[in-house]
Amino acid sequence: MTLAELQNLIDRSLFATLAYRDGEDRIQIRRVFCTWHRGLGRHLISTNTSSGHVACLLRDGRASLYFADDVRFEGLNLTGTVTVHTERPWKELLWHDGDEKYYPKGVDDPDYCVLEFAADGGAYYRFDGKGTLTREETEAWDRDRSFADTYALTHAAGEP
Amino acid sequence: MTLAELQNLIDRSLFATLAYRDGEDRIQIRRVFCTWHRGLGRHLISTNTSSGHVACLLRDGRASLYFADDVRFEGLNLTGTVTVHTERPWKELLWHDGDEKYYPKGVDDPDYCVLEFAADGGAYYRFDGKGTLTREETEAWDRDRSFADTYALTHAAGEP
Repeated sequence: MTLAELQNLIDRSLFATLAYRDGEDRIQIRRVFCTWHRGLGRHLISTNTSSGHVACLLRDGRASLYFADDVRFEGLNLTGTVTVHTERPWKELLWHDGDEKYYPKGVDDPDYCVLEFAADGGAYYRFDGKGTLTREETEAWDRDRSFADTYALTHAAGEP
Repeated sequence: MTLAELQNLIDRSLFATLAYRDGEDRIQIRRVFCTWHRGLGRHLISTNTSSGHVACLLRDGRASLYFADDVRFEGLNLTGTVTVHTERPWKELLWHDGDEKYYPKGVDDPDYCVLEFAADGGAYYRFDGKGTLTREETEAWDRDRSFADTYALTHAAGEP
C-alpha cells in the first residue's frame, strides 16, 4: 500500500483499536473513536480520565493503534507511545457541542482528557500483500501537516 | 452484560482482533477471521504457518482477543494464551472446500495451521457499563460445550 492509501484508510475510519499493557503486563484492547489525525503518525482520542486504560497508559505508555477496513481487507498497525494530555488547549481542540453528556463539567471537567498516540513504526496488510512503515517515512509524510478532524470530511452532518 | 449476551457478541462476529508481542516486546495487532468457538473461552483461527504473527506467538504465546460491535457499542477483551496447532485433526476441523486458494497443498499443507486462543479472563464494555469475566465463570459456562463454527449459524450461504 502507498502512504496515500494508508492515509486514506486512517481518514475514512471512525474507530481504531488501541492495545496497551495493564498492571499485570497483559495486553488490553479497546475500540476507540478516533477521527483526529496528523498525517499517519499522530492521533488524538478524547476519553474519561478515570478510565482503566488511562491509568494503565500513565503507568506504561507503550501502545499500538490499529486501523482496519474489514470490507476491503486493509489493516494498519502502528506501534508507539501514548501521552495523556490534561491541558486546556488539547481539550478545547477536541471539544464538540453536546460533549457535556460525557463530561458534565464541560471542557474543564477533570474527567475529560485527550490521548495522543505517536507512532514509531508500523505494518500494513492488504489482500495483495504486506509491508512496513518506518518512523522516517512517517515523519517525512507528516512534516507539513497539522492535526485535523476527519469526521466532518468523511461523514455527512447528522449521519452516524 | 450477561454471559449469554457476551456469547451472542462472539457468535455473531466474523472477525476478531488479535494482539500479541513481537520480538521487541511491542504489541502487534491483526484482524483475524474467527468463527470457531467453544463457548466464551476458546477460539480457533486458521492461518499461514509462515506468517509473522505465528513466529511471534511461538516465541511468546501471551495474547489478547477482542470481539466488538461498533454499532451496538459492545466490546469484549479476552486475555489468554495462544497454542499453534499443526496436527491434522485441528486442520481437518477448520478446512473448507476452496481453502486451496490459501493453502495450495491442501489440509496437509505445512503452511496451514490452526491457532487456539484460550482465555484466562476478560473485560467487557457496553454503553450501559463495563465489567469483568473471570476464568471460573468462563470455565463453568463452557464446560458442556464443544467447538462449533458459528459462520453457518449467522451468515446465509453465499453472503459475505
